[in-house]
Amino acid sequence: MSDVAAEPALRWPALDRAALLPGITATVAQGEQLSAVLYSLAAGAVVPAHAHESEEFGQVLAGSLELDVAGRTTVLTAGEGFLIPGAVPHAARAGDDGCELLECYAPPRTPVPPAPEGAAE
Amino acid sequence: MSDVAAEPALRWPALDRAALLPGITATVAQGEQLSAVLYSLAAGAVVPAHAHESEEFGQVLAGSLELDVAGRTTVLTAGEGFLIPGAVPHAARAGDDGCELLECYAPPRTPVPPAPEGAAE
Repeated sequence: MSDVAAEPALRWPALDRAALLPGITATVAQGEQLSAVLYSLAAGAVVPAHAHESEEFGQVLAGSLELDVAGRTTVLTAGEGFLIPGAVPHAARAGDDGCELLECYAPPRTPVPPAPEGAAE
Repeated sequence: MSDVAAEPALRWPALDRAALLPGITATVAQGEQLSAVLYSLAAGAVVPAHAHESEEFGQVLAGSLELDVAGRTTVLTAGEGFLIPGAVPHAARAGDDGCELLECYAPPRTPVPPAPEGAAE
């Protein structure tokens, strides 16, 4: 977590990077009103269907992402984004070149990474 | 503005792009909890000092940005981000290669682009 009051810059590689799911790592910057997360997904890595109260914005920085929102599938490539209202179920799968994905959640999503499977989210 | 309930994808080039300030254009996607904005700044384009209640996250997608937050200057290059708490004065200037800048505001910042100079923000 970055001390944004003292230093606004987010030099992502210098921040802690956590293993989240098989083939997926996440670097998190928590603010007061939003969370910003840089995800790295290996080729074919899967984010299982889930939902959370926070609204979610995402931007594909590199590679591609197959996004399923409420049962509808969309393929996003580098330079494209998405916006998912709170509480809407969604899932994702990285393309054959993997995916570098930047996301913001508002209100802040905690914990990010989410609690282990089986824990309340 | 994108109808995120019907279509989560943000294909930025297909959305309305507004001239904001000299050398600066903005494409806005408004959510319920956050605003996402893709800015394009020409070389040397200046964002004058301002402040707003929304917390602001930014990520430099291409080029570079000289960011001044509460009087402290930081240079950010592609792949680096920043997080500015609400109500903190800040200003920015694009580097010699311009800057493609992605930002999120929470709570949503309206209007984006801001009202003309002299209007209450």
